[in-house]
Amino acid sequence: MPPIIGVIGGGQLARMMIPRAIELGFELRVLAENEGMSAALAATAVGDYRDAATVLEFARDVDVITFDHEHVPQDVLAQLVEAGISVHPGPAPLAVAQDKILMRQELTRLGLPVPEWASVSTPAELNAFIANNGGRVIVKTPRGGYDGKGVRVVSAASDVADWFETGGPLLAEELVSFTRELAQLAARSPSGEVALWPLVESIQQNGVCAEVIAPAPSAPAPLALAAADIARAVAEKLGVTGVLAVELFETADGRLLINELAMRPHNSGHWTMDGAITSQFEQHLRAVLDLPLGATDARSPWTVMINVLGGPATGTIAERYPRAFSNQPGAKFHEYGKAPRPGRKVGHINVSGDELDDVMYRARAAAAIVKD
Amino acid sequence: MPPIIGVIGGGQLARMMIPRAIELGFELRVLAENEGMSAALAATAVGDYRDAATVLEFARDVDVITFDHEHVPQDVLAQLVEAGISVHPGPAPLAVAQDKILMRQELTRLGLPVPEWASVSTPAELNAFIANNGGRVIVKTPRGGYDGKGVRVVSAASDVADWFETGGPLLAEELVSFTRELAQLAARSPSGEVALWPLVESIQQNGVCAEVIAPAPSAPAPLALAAADIARAVAEKLGVTGVLAVELFETADGRLLINELAMRPHNSGHWTMDGAITSQFEQHLRAVLDLPLGATDARSPWTVMINVLGGPATGTIAERYPRAFSNQPGAKFHEYGKAPRPGRKVGHINVSGDELDDVMYRARAAAAIVKD
Repeated sequence: MPPIIGVIGGGQLARMMIPRAIELGFELRVLAENEGMSAALAATAVGDYRDAATVLEFARDVDVITFDHEHVPQDVLAQLVEAGISVHPGPAPLAVAQDKILMRQELTRLGLPVPEWASVSTPAELNAFIANNGGRVIVKTPRGGYDGKGVRVVSAASDVADWFETGGPLLAEELVSFTRELAQLAARSPSGEVALWPLVESIQQNGVCAEVIAPAPSAPAPLALAAADIARAVAEKLGVTGVLAVELFETADGRLLINELAMRPHNSGHWTMDGAITSQFEQHLRAVLDLPLGATDARSPWTVMINVLGGPATGTIAERYPRAFSNQPGAKFHEYGKAPRPGRKVGHINVSGDELDDVMYRARAAAAIVKD
Repeated sequence: MPPIIGVIGGGQLARMMIPRAIELGFELRVLAENEGMSAALAATAVGDYRDAATVLEFARDVDVITFDHEHVPQDVLAQLVEAGISVHPGPAPLAVAQDKILMRQELTRLGLPVPEWASVSTPAELNAFIANNGGRVIVKTPRGGYDGKGVRVVSAASDVADWFETGGPLLAEELVSFTRELAQLAARSPSGEVALWPLVESIQQNGVCAEVIAPAPSAPAPLALAAADIARAVAEKLGVTGVLAVELFETADGRLLINELAMRPHNSGHWTMDGAITSQFEQHLRAVLDLPLGATDARSPWTVMINVLGGPATGTIAERYPRAFSNQPGAKFHEYGKAPRPGRKVGHINVSGDELDDVMYRARAAAAIVKD
């Protein structure tokens, strides 16, 4: 009997695990939030991941439970573990991913480099932090933010008065003066094996990942080593299993600071689907099943990934295939099967090759055709 | 709405179309012969492909019908076409793939290079052909053979007395003195676009493809061009749509002779799944939907594909993953989800790299672990 992997969440990350599961002969089951989601192809159940009974029923007979997102409540995770079910990543690392204040506390405790930060419970505390950090800072809601949501640049506590009203502390962070954003993707198995892909550069637009360049251009070996050490330390010391993405700021003075962590396959790793020997989705399946990890070498000198977001008058990516395929026969298109609402990630494009200028040009040309 | 592709036949070729269909956002439906087949994941119907009503019902609402095999009867194909359904490859080229005598007649008519051959209806005719061709020849049943079945080396008509008893002519062919076997993979769209992958060498054991080396080593440019010209001519002149594999003999005096044709993705093209920019499965989907074809360049200097056959005491490939993954982290394993009966193709392994010796060593090491 093939191993059975249960994925909680039916988004595009679950969807992109399906091809590798099929090729490796694994059975993948998905608990989707709703009908018709991105991973509906493999959805064996539709239900609320916050409901312990629903999740426990889904988890019967699987060899391991893993996730499309980090939002399964701790009490549900605890019940899975109590029921003897293998859960990767486990409740302890997921707690760190679920709460940005806890994440900052843990990274600080471990001596890992993070921006200046404070947990602020009142407007007065936030105003004091602003005064001490140059007059403009970042404020984040500890839970539920993603793709720029739950994040604001503020110069006064009144800019987040609405967030204070809902109660609970907020995370205040210095506005890091960074030269660029990098991401270090890693995978760790329960047995402790760690695999690291090449360091990449990620280019954000409006708080959303727009492009990834693999490997990060002009990254000297010490920088790449420092990023790898940080990701390895996070994975090992927090006990992360499966894929881990560490989003980093590179500062003008050559330091790396941890911006965000994701304990699942991540947008900054989509390039691996065509550009690396082992994709992040195959690696995640191998890791959560505690199988030996695959080689993470790049297949080409350069790979560029560009996200496709729904536009104001968008059709599906597939409707653009005739022109896009004709114009860029070497581009690899990935469609998420989602309704193309404005701003929504509906797919991505990977292009690989020997010269970065050419690869970037071809990736952007392909993206221009499928975007509005 | 995404395009819908209906695949008749539920074997591993249909199965290997599923990942690319998911990634490109196409809907793939499979008419499987039985429950629990290799492509059961996408099986939306189970039924007999020889039954026109079953096939017509399956074909409702699809944008195109294509195939996992070449065995759908001509009368069923004719009814699909009459019903206005797009069928690729169409009935005319499939007729050539279905009957080895018709194939030889057509290739001869087109002036393409084939071994000496004759259609023999009686033992006396076969004995005459044997006498004129060196005393030993190949005899093939015109229909239904594959992987060495329906093929015998004979020195007297009595060696195929059983086949003569079942009636109908047999195909007799000279026993070609070849130095090696090559395969030229191509794809053609209904609009007439043709794409050709690099020429490969295929190594057969007991009539079954055992290994493929891409590209074919020591193949001078004129040989590669000649193979490409042959495949292009077959595709264009027979009107093949979708993927076409042309299996070739290379003779000691440097000629190419066509051995077999397959009008579908083919074992000699499995290396493209990891070794080429566009795999044969993605290309087949693009071609039958009449979309522009993808780049067929190799991703690496060398890729070796090794088939995994079920052995006398075999488990599944997945049971060997712990040791195989650990030993060969760069090998890509493909499992077909089939019960591992002796001699049955249950999966394959691709390894890519810069040095053929190293790539071959690693592929064979991985295969040795998953085989008995």
